[in-house]
Amino acid sequence: MAAAASQGILGDDMKADREQIVEMLVKAYFMELETVMSYITNSVNPDGIRAREIVESLETDIQEELGHAQQFAARIKELYGVVPGSQQFSAEQSFLQPPEDQTDIAHVIRGVIEAESGAIEHYNAVIEFTEGRDPVTQDLVIAILRDEEGHRRLFEGFLREVEGPGGA
Amino acid sequence: MAAAASQGILGDDMKADREQIVEMLVKAYFMELETVMSYITNSVNPDGIRAREIVESLETDIQEELGHAQQFAARIKELYGVVPGSQQFSAEQSFLQPPEDQTDIAHVIRGVIEAESGAIEHYNAVIEFTEGRDPVTQDLVIAILRDEEGHRRLFEGFLREVEGPGGA
Amino acid sequence: MAAAASQGILGDDMKADREQIVEMLVKAYFMELETVMSYITNSVNPDGIRAREIVESLETDIQEELGHAQQFAARIKELYGVVPGSQQFSAEQSFLQPPEDQTDIAHVIRGVIEAESGAIEHYNAVIEFTEGRDPVTQDLVIAILRDEEGHRRLFEGFLREVEGPGGA
Amino acid sequence: MAAAASQGILGDDMKADREQIVEMLVKAYFMELETVMSYITNSVNPDGIRAREIVESLETDIQEELGHAQQFAARIKELYGVVPGSQQFSAEQSFLQPPEDQTDIAHVIRGVIEAESGAIEHYNAVIEFTEGRDPVTQDLVIAILRDEEGHRRLFEGFLREVEGPGGA
Amino acid sequence: MAAAASQGILGDDMKADREQIVEMLVKAYFMELETVMSYITNSVNPDGIRAREIVESLETDIQEELGHAQQFAARIKELYGVVPGSQQFSAEQSFLQPPEDQTDIAHVIRGVIEAESGAIEHYNAVIEFTEGRDPVTQDLVIAILRDEEGHRRLFEGFLREVEGPGGA
Amino acid sequence: MAAAASQGILGDDMKADREQIVEMLVKAYFMELETVMSYITNSVNPDGIRAREIVESLETDIQEELGHAQQFAARIKELYGVVPGSQQFSAEQSFLQPPEDQTDIAHVIRGVIEAESGAIEHYNAVIEFTEGRDPVTQDLVIAILRDEEGHRRLFEGFLREVEGPGGA
Amino acid sequence: MAAAASQGILGDDMKADREQIVEMLVKAYFMELETVMSYITNSVNPDGIRAREIVESLETDIQEELGHAQQFAARIKELYGVVPGSQQFSAEQSFLQPPEDQTDIAHVIRGVIEAESGAIEHYNAVIEFTEGRDPVTQDLVIAILRDEEGHRRLFEGFLREVEGPGGA
Amino acid sequence: MAAAASQGILGDDMKADREQIVEMLVKAYFMELETVMSYITNSVNPDGIRAREIVESLETDIQEELGHAQQFAARIKELYGVVPGSQQFSAEQSFLQPPEDQTDIAHVIRGVIEAESGAIEHYNAVIEFTEGRDPVTQDLVIAILRDEEGHRRLFEGFLREVEGPGGA
Amino acid sequence: MAAAASQGILGDDMKADREQIVEMLVKAYFMELETVMSYITNSVNPDGIRAREIVESLETDIQEELGHAQQFAARIKELYGVVPGSQQFSAEQSFLQPPEDQTDIAHVIRGVIEAESGAIEHYNAVIEFTEGRDPVTQDLVIAILRDEEGHRRLFEGFLREVEGPGGA
Amino acid sequence: MAAAASQGILGDDMKADREQIVEMLVKAYFMELETVMSYITNSVNPDGIRAREIVESLETDIQEELGHAQQFAARIKELYGVVPGSQQFSAEQSFLQPPEDQTDIAHVIRGVIEAESGAIEHYNAVIEFTEGRDPVTQDLVIAILRDEEGHRRLFEGFLREVEGPGGA
Amino acid sequence: MAAAASQGILGDDMKADREQIVEMLVKAYFMELETVMSYITNSVNPDGIRAREIVESLETDIQEELGHAQQFAARIKELYGVVPGSQQFSAEQSFLQPPEDQTDIAHVIRGVIEAESGAIEHYNAVIEFTEGRDPVTQDLVIAILRDEEGHRRLFEGFLREVEGPGGA
Amino acid sequence: MAAAASQGILGDDMKADREQIVEMLVKAYFMELETVMSYITNSVNPDGIRAREIVESLETDIQEELGHAQQFAARIKELYGVVPGSQQFSAEQSFLQPPEDQTDIAHVIRGVIEAESGAIEHYNAVIEFTEGRDPVTQDLVIAILRDEEGHRRLFEGFLREVEGPGGA
Repeated sequence: MAAAASQGILGDDMKADREQIVEMLVKAYFMELETVMSYITNSVNPDGIRAREIVESLETDIQEELGHAQQFAARIKELYGVVPGSQQFSAEQSFLQPPEDQTDIAHVIRGVIEAESGAIEHYNAVIEFTEGRDPVTQDLVIAILRDEEGHRRLFEGFLREVEGPGGA
Repeated sequence: MAAAASQGILGDDMKADREQIVEMLVKAYFMELETVMSYITNSVNPDGIRAREIVESLETDIQEELGHAQQFAARIKELYGVVPGSQQFSAEQSFLQPPEDQTDIAHVIRGVIEAESGAIEHYNAVIEFTEGRDPVTQDLVIAILRDEEGHRRLFEGFLREVEGPGGA
Repeated sequence: MAAAASQGILGDDMKADREQIVEMLVKAYFMELETVMSYITNSVNPDGIRAREIVESLETDIQEELGHAQQFAARIKELYGVVPGSQQFSAEQSFLQPPEDQTDIAHVIRGVIEAESGAIEHYNAVIEFTEGRDPVTQDLVIAILRDEEGHRRLFEGFLREVEGPGGA
Repeated sequence: MAAAASQGILGDDMKADREQIVEMLVKAYFMELETVMSYITNSVNPDGIRAREIVESLETDIQEELGHAQQFAARIKELYGVVPGSQQFSAEQSFLQPPEDQTDIAHVIRGVIEAESGAIEHYNAVIEFTEGRDPVTQDLVIAILRDEEGHRRLFEGFLREVEGPGGA
Repeated sequence: MAAAASQGILGDDMKADREQIVEMLVKAYFMELETVMSYITNSVNPDGIRAREIVESLETDIQEELGHAQQFAARIKELYGVVPGSQQFSAEQSFLQPPEDQTDIAHVIRGVIEAESGAIEHYNAVIEFTEGRDPVTQDLVIAILRDEEGHRRLFEGFLREVEGPGGA
Repeated sequence: MAAAASQGILGDDMKADREQIVEMLVKAYFMELETVMSYITNSVNPDGIRAREIVESLETDIQEELGHAQQFAARIKELYGVVPGSQQFSAEQSFLQPPEDQTDIAHVIRGVIEAESGAIEHYNAVIEFTEGRDPVTQDLVIAILRDEEGHRRLFEGFLREVEGPGGA
Repeated sequence: MAAAASQGILGDDMKADREQIVEMLVKAYFMELETVMSYITNSVNPDGIRAREIVESLETDIQEELGHAQQFAARIKELYGVVPGSQQFSAEQSFLQPPEDQTDIAHVIRGVIEAESGAIEHYNAVIEFTEGRDPVTQDLVIAILRDEEGHRRLFEGFLREVEGPGGA
Repeated sequence: MAAAASQGILGDDMKADREQIVEMLVKAYFMELETVMSYITNSVNPDGIRAREIVESLETDIQEELGHAQQFAARIKELYGVVPGSQQFSAEQSFLQPPEDQTDIAHVIRGVIEAESGAIEHYNAVIEFTEGRDPVTQDLVIAILRDEEGHRRLFEGFLREVEGPGGA
Repeated sequence: MAAAASQGILGDDMKADREQIVEMLVKAYFMELETVMSYITNSVNPDGIRAREIVESLETDIQEELGHAQQFAARIKELYGVVPGSQQFSAEQSFLQPPEDQTDIAHVIRGVIEAESGAIEHYNAVIEFTEGRDPVTQDLVIAILRDEEGHRRLFEGFLREVEGPGGA
Repeated sequence: MAAAASQGILGDDMKADREQIVEMLVKAYFMELETVMSYITNSVNPDGIRAREIVESLETDIQEELGHAQQFAARIKELYGVVPGSQQFSAEQSFLQPPEDQTDIAHVIRGVIEAESGAIEHYNAVIEFTEGRDPVTQDLVIAILRDEEGHRRLFEGFLREVEGPGGA
Repeated sequence: MAAAASQGILGDDMKADREQIVEMLVKAYFMELETVMSYITNSVNPDGIRAREIVESLETDIQEELGHAQQFAARIKELYGVVPGSQQFSAEQSFLQPPEDQTDIAHVIRGVIEAESGAIEHYNAVIEFTEGRDPVTQDLVIAILRDEEGHRRLFEGFLREVEGPGGA
Repeated sequence: MAAAASQGILGDDMKADREQIVEMLVKAYFMELETVMSYITNSVNPDGIRAREIVESLETDIQEELGHAQQFAARIKELYGVVPGSQQFSAEQSFLQPPEDQTDIAHVIRGVIEAESGAIEHYNAVIEFTEGRDPVTQDLVIAILRDEEGHRRLFEGFLREVEGPGGA
């Protein structure tokens, strides 16, 4: 237990790593915020009975994703970063914009899968980078990754049906 | 009670008015969404004891403002509109970006007052326009206006102290 | 503020208006009661997976509609009217009787839309009539109108799918 | 345990009995629905301090009776019957219509006792008929009978006082 | 939407109206406070079984009326007024002072009706004045008016019985 | 009331009947345990939107069926029996094993109906045998039979749709 | 369904049976009341660690047994009987009086078993007598019998240990 | 602070006082137990609307009085006494036996007042005796005395009305 | 234990003392009522961040002080007194009137301390007078005194800071 | 009621008494804190089935004793004392250190009794000293004494068994 | 961060590892299911006071272990595996079958320890294998391992006592 | 997966590591206990408005830190260690002793930061040591580290303000 390591990721000796993690968290923060926005949109617009399952699933996730965003924001602060303002936000989820036809749920399902895949990819990278560097951030991101993996798996199941012989 | 009026704002005869209201609600929807974003930022960044009151007040409001956004989204749908996607969002609250110095709470207070003033102005316009046209939307907006007026008043009180002789 | 107006709708000078409102509320009261009856029927009879969403939606609404009926009854009493007995009830919702085939959910969906449209029409008339005469009744009816509009919109979405190319 | 008996009341061999039970349950279903209607009426109309006990008792029972109706509806469905629509409803409780004078609580008390007596009579018949045929329906009806017996007993006590020397 | 109207009742252009509303709210505030006081008194003093219904009704209302007072106080503040202190309070409800005989509940019932009538009159005036001027205050007062109308109606029913042939 | 009968099913004179009931309860116990197992499997494996209703229904039933198993175990103990261990368990529900294709929900629905039919048959036999012998066990089994009948009826409705012209 | 049977146990034709049942319920009522008393005594007096399980079990049962007594009292009233006063109570549970030595828990265990056995015997007799006469009372007593059987079984298990080679 | 006084009422030097207090608590314990019994009786038997207030008041008190009994029992144990068994109970409340006529509520009211007066007298004696000797018991009894005084006062109010010119 | 003392403070022999206590309680009752009024005023008017702590503390206390007032009222009734009406109220708390400037929180803090000091003084007097005369009232007032002492101490701490070198 | 006594224990005239009480409370505060520490230790270490009752009892008490410590701390502050820091803590409970063998529960039981006896002795002294000087502190300590007496009594019962012929 | 690693364990490049983990999870899933079964058996069968602690501990764990099984099932699905059906279950816990004598709790205790040891061994292997491969599964298994370690430790303590000189 | 590793940290082959971890946990345990003590002291002593935020923050943390201590104690036991008694406690937090002046909150803030820094350092060492040795302890300590990092960050923000130009 050398003195240099004693404050962990908060120590002066780890400043560069810390700033790298903050940067990754800022990206994660905006991903979650945009997901909140996209899920509100897609939990209100779709029409039809079959759409209800998707709508209810997304409605439930809005709170969960907002919670993720707030956890990322808090961790940014703890690592001596600054949470960015709304002017630094730029939309990335072109695949989750409302479709032409509000009964086209395959569009929504594919959009959700793409969004979750992006998140899974980024969170795996964060987990890898924080290994041995910042166990607290790693633990937080593993827990969030678990939510996203489960969510994508559910929508992959939806897609299988929708794209099957009897799909829309 | 002429036939033309019987379905109220949902009737075919009121299509133009309805589309006008949808447009106003879309604007309101994005105002509330940006406020959610700004309040997360400003409930995490500020440092200091005095900042706690502001931080706690904003933290509580995040859920309230998200609720407003979801109510606007639902009403847009009911009026046969389409809730827009994240790519149509563009940040307006230049006054609520994080300040240089995280103990500069006067910056945050002034930003909140400006945001609330913008909302109050827009909601007064919606209330005026819906008068005699769409009592359901009007009722919904009056209730939200009440929250915003109370909130601005609280921050005006904060500002008075902060800008006073003993202020920061 | 003339003395004659001081007790509002409860004043002697407004007796004729008050009796007119009571009559409208009696009609509303029986509409809601019949809806309770129809929704029990249609939340139990339908068979099939797709019917579950409709069934669950109607089950939830039974309590809501009963609440509406009780609010109308209470307001009739407050306006010095008498809530009518069961012998004055006569069924009007021919469109919500059980279909031949219990998997015919399009029948149920169309019935719900027709019932809600009738309610929306009547409530718009009450809101118009009470304007400037009885703000308490007006406020109460606006809140109920909001529920009915949201409910009809949901079933219109169901209908779109059911009547589409892949519908039943 | 002969094969014929193995599915109990749901078996093909018991179709005639089952249809007889469904018929009895349909009657019970409409009795409970009318009671809901009558109890709303009589929990709102009566005036006076003494009427409060009756009013509060009926208010509480509205939910209970609605629950009975929903249990009957569900059992009709389970026995392969169809829950009837509102057009098959016809009012029977002439004794529970609103009285001339809203302080005439003896009228209400007598009406409740008559309604409960009708229910008790019918439910005893159902219990007798289902004995050895359909234990599930029997168990359900015994539990409901218990409620009705307790309720009638309470109102008989009220009647004794009201009809006594110091009664209204 | 002229600039002058954009901040609604909070705008500088509406200062005179705002001060008028504040004045009306101050009066309403003291009416509710005195009602709290009177209802404590009259929920404790009366003796007898028949008095229990009145006592329990008033006990429940104490919290409700206190809530009204606090809502009025908050609205005064939001409209840039100052909530007055206890020295500006002066008792008005001569009709709700404790009677000679604590079993004289007719005295209490009449007092409550008179208090509620005063409130109804004043709130109708506020609703009329705020029409088109301050929808938030109007909405708040309509909701409170509803409580008061329901409450007076209940006590009118009590009075009918008490003053009838068999009354005290 | 002869002395020999006074302790009911717990008396020495009823030992043979008691042992017969214990045997029937042991069978019931293992049926419920296997159902728990099968419902976990079938509430996790199926893919697709339409499968959600089945999945959610089974998920809810897991707790209910476990409760049934625990009630049977407790009753076995009360009747001086011994609850068997896991080595005496042998799987019987060949019809509820996972299908080849996880979107084949007709397979699952048919499996549930078959499982419930087996339970209904066995419980009817227990009810018949306990008649006049052990009212406590009979009452317990009637209540459980009610759950199973309702559950089978729901899945029969699902099957009707799935096997219909538009089914999978 | 002869007219004479139509009101079930509440009909005039069943007066003699009803009075017999009331008598049995009065006995049951006093048995439960004495058990309440004995269980308070025996949940407070015993000393020692081993006694804790007995004490906690009895403490929990006090409320349950009081509930039984209140249910019996209510049923007596419903059957037109009169609940007796305290002067008609006479203690019967000689076996549940406090022992010489407060660590003698075998004494308490044997007392509880004897009390429960008495109750089981009496409740079996009531169930037998009410068969075909009064299904409501029968149902109520079966449910209570179930509690008592479970309770006795638990204490028989305690006794086995206490009287075994390593017992007190 | 002499050594002799250091363990307070639990010290050996205070054995005589302690035994005196135990004796007083045993009496209090049986008073409360008999009250439980009498209140069950009198919360079930009375008929009539007016009786509802008394019935509901006594029903609520059953749990309170049982709680008092359990507190007395626990304190007896803490003071090294033994809680007596049911055979030492002997009924004293001749005034709370059921009246001839179940609508004679004056009988019940007078009985309650007499029971409460007896309790108040005894508890004043305990408070006086424990002064300076056993502050824990004193504190416990003062709290119970408060309940009993409030209860008697309520029934004195009932009596005033019942015995007045319009009483039963 | 002389007969004269047996009913404690409720006995005829203690009438003079009782009337003296009632008088003291009436004064306490009005003190608490005025405090409710003053705390509403002072929990709404003050502006500024620093004022939030005071505002929140007073808001919480409103309910507590109202509870005190209601306890005093109930005790007055129990001691055969009459709770006075609003016309006997006269404001005493000149020190808690709203200040000129709503950011002058030192004014509010000093006012609260003065109000609490007055209450503490009066309650000490009541405790002294009731010693050996009315333990129930004494116990009630000690509990309230505890609240007031804690509250004053908190505001003394506030004052120390506000009046210090860096104070307002 | 001389002026000097009017502020009770908080008055300047009682400074010496107050400081004496503060000193006693500081001792009580540390006693409770050490008990928290000892109870954590002894609720985790012991092995065995018999130890479960002791372990569960101590686990529950940890929160209770912490609450006592916090109440003492708050009262020290109210009496113008200063709550001491951790460096002034010195362990006294030699009898509650972990035993050699973790199944030696007699060691733990004796330790708890000794700790409670010490507390009872000290609290009796505080009660005696505060008599007529500081009723608020006295009331608080009586309530805590009650907990400790009950707790010691329970463990004395445990000891009796453990030290008996069949004890460990 | 090579592209191949970006989807983590869900990526195509990790298929072999994923299938290995699924296999390990299937084994874990059946271990937990059998534990549910064994704990029901062993929470019902044992007789005696000492057995209560074991019985209550196992009862609580049933839900916990079922939750573990459901978490394993969900994770199998997320990793593209199939949850096996009941026919693939084969009992392994020979040590948790019911003993000859239902008071032989040493048998139960040893069985629980053996079952937990098997689980601990397997979970350690899963944790080791998932290291650096699948952090989500690893995190989930660590949390479950923690429960099992705590549980085994508790039963080891029980065993120490039971096998000691004074054991059964 | 060699046999030696199969029981993980609980295996005999890891005894030395396990004892090392126990030692580290004992240190952690006492750190948390002293923090509980220090936070009680510092949540009661400070005076002033500004101190409220610190006081409320520490009050909330008392429960959290006690929970940490109990988790460490439980883990020590699971790893076959012995939780030490109070005599092994020795105070280390010289920086958290009460200051001279109770309005000196900078002293408290600095003390909290120093305490949290000590904890962060020690927990980082535990996490590092348990890596690959004891995942359960590691997981537990990471979760606690997260709390401590968040807490220190908050107080660093406080310090920045307090030490700034306008600080105390």
